[in-house]
Amino acid sequence: MRKVTYGAACSLDGFIAGPNHEVDWLHMSKDVHAIMADYWTRIDTLLMGRKTWEVAQRMGSGADSSMMSGIESYVFSRTLQQLPSGQGHLVSGDAGDFVRHLKRRRGKEICVFGGGELAQSLFEAGVIDEVGVNVHPVLLGAGVPLFRNAGRIRLALTECRRIGGGCAYLTYRVLSRRQRDLDLGHALNAAVR
Amino acid sequence: MRKVTYGAACSLDGFIAGPNHEVDWLHMSKDVHAIMADYWTRIDTLLMGRKTWEVAQRMGSGADSSMMSGIESYVFSRTLQQLPSGQGHLVSGDAGDFVRHLKRRRGKEICVFGGGELAQSLFEAGVIDEVGVNVHPVLLGAGVPLFRNAGRIRLALTECRRIGGGCAYLTYRVLSRRQRDLDLGHALNAAVR
Repeated sequence: MRKVTYGAACSLDGFIAGPNHEVDWLHMSKDVHAIMADYWTRIDTLLMGRKTWEVAQRMGSGADSSMMSGIESYVFSRTLQQLPSGQGHLVSGDAGDFVRHLKRRRGKEICVFGGGELAQSLFEAGVIDEVGVNVHPVLLGAGVPLFRNAGRIRLALTECRRIGGGCAYLTYRVLSRRQRDLDLGHALNAAVR
Repeated sequence: MRKVTYGAACSLDGFIAGPNHEVDWLHMSKDVHAIMADYWTRIDTLLMGRKTWEVAQRMGSGADSSMMSGIESYVFSRTLQQLPSGQGHLVSGDAGDFVRHLKRRRGKEICVFGGGELAQSLFEAGVIDEVGVNVHPVLLGAGVPLFRNAGRIRLALTECRRIGGGCAYLTYRVLSRRQRDLDLGHALNAAVR
């Protein structure tokens, strides 16, 4: 079964971008480059929501073509009709079902990329196996949250170390979740939607 | 000048209690006891907001009398008229001004205790010197946030280590903040109030 990892650089208060999508506080240390270089060899699939895909489009994706060679991208959206040619595959069905199917196919690891809305669905579906956060030494106060409400999810810390720029690199394995927690998560989400 | 520290145990998604104030996920390891025992010798003052004070009252405060001997408590509230005798001092004026004054008085370190509303005012007033978080290996999804919006605040990581129960103990020094960030924080807070 292929491993699915969700993670990102975030502020200590859990935002991956500021209130105006600012990422000027991000620190690209040698440690981050080393972590990314290693991670990039282990994956062959990127999953992202529509909003993340749009941000990536505006920013010119930031990934050069050599970096993206051999990587399959899937964009999850219920509103997009199609993607421009060569920009990845559009997924409009149930995200959890799709990823559950994808995990059974032969291949390398799978990366959930970008903001927390897709991750929320995938946490609820129980298909995320690992979480990695690069906690930056800043409070942003507001912005795009890394985690949204998918109910209570137990984790196990697998790595905890200081890296360049005063960042804390934390990785976790996702443990099983109780049905009660899942139901509570759904009820709370329904209440705030 | 006395040092003011804000911190707590929190989930990876930044909550100090669940949606129904649950704290059943808290892990009291030997490491936590050692950290608290050391910290407790360094402080002589507890600051808390009205809501935290009320929770502490309901829970019987959790602190035995020997633990609280020699500790002065201040409860910040604009609505309470008075506190029961022996339950600490009521502060109804500007929290930032009060703490700025308190820091200049002779004494040991000062602890900001409980949820993030008082801390938000004190971050905005620039009187918090250190932040400490004991990140527990759980996502709660919703609940009482450790941090609220006080604009952007730069920090410097001073400690990063794994402690018992798969927790990550992170401490920070609060660095100076730019006036622009403060203004932005105020504007954003005004917009959501």
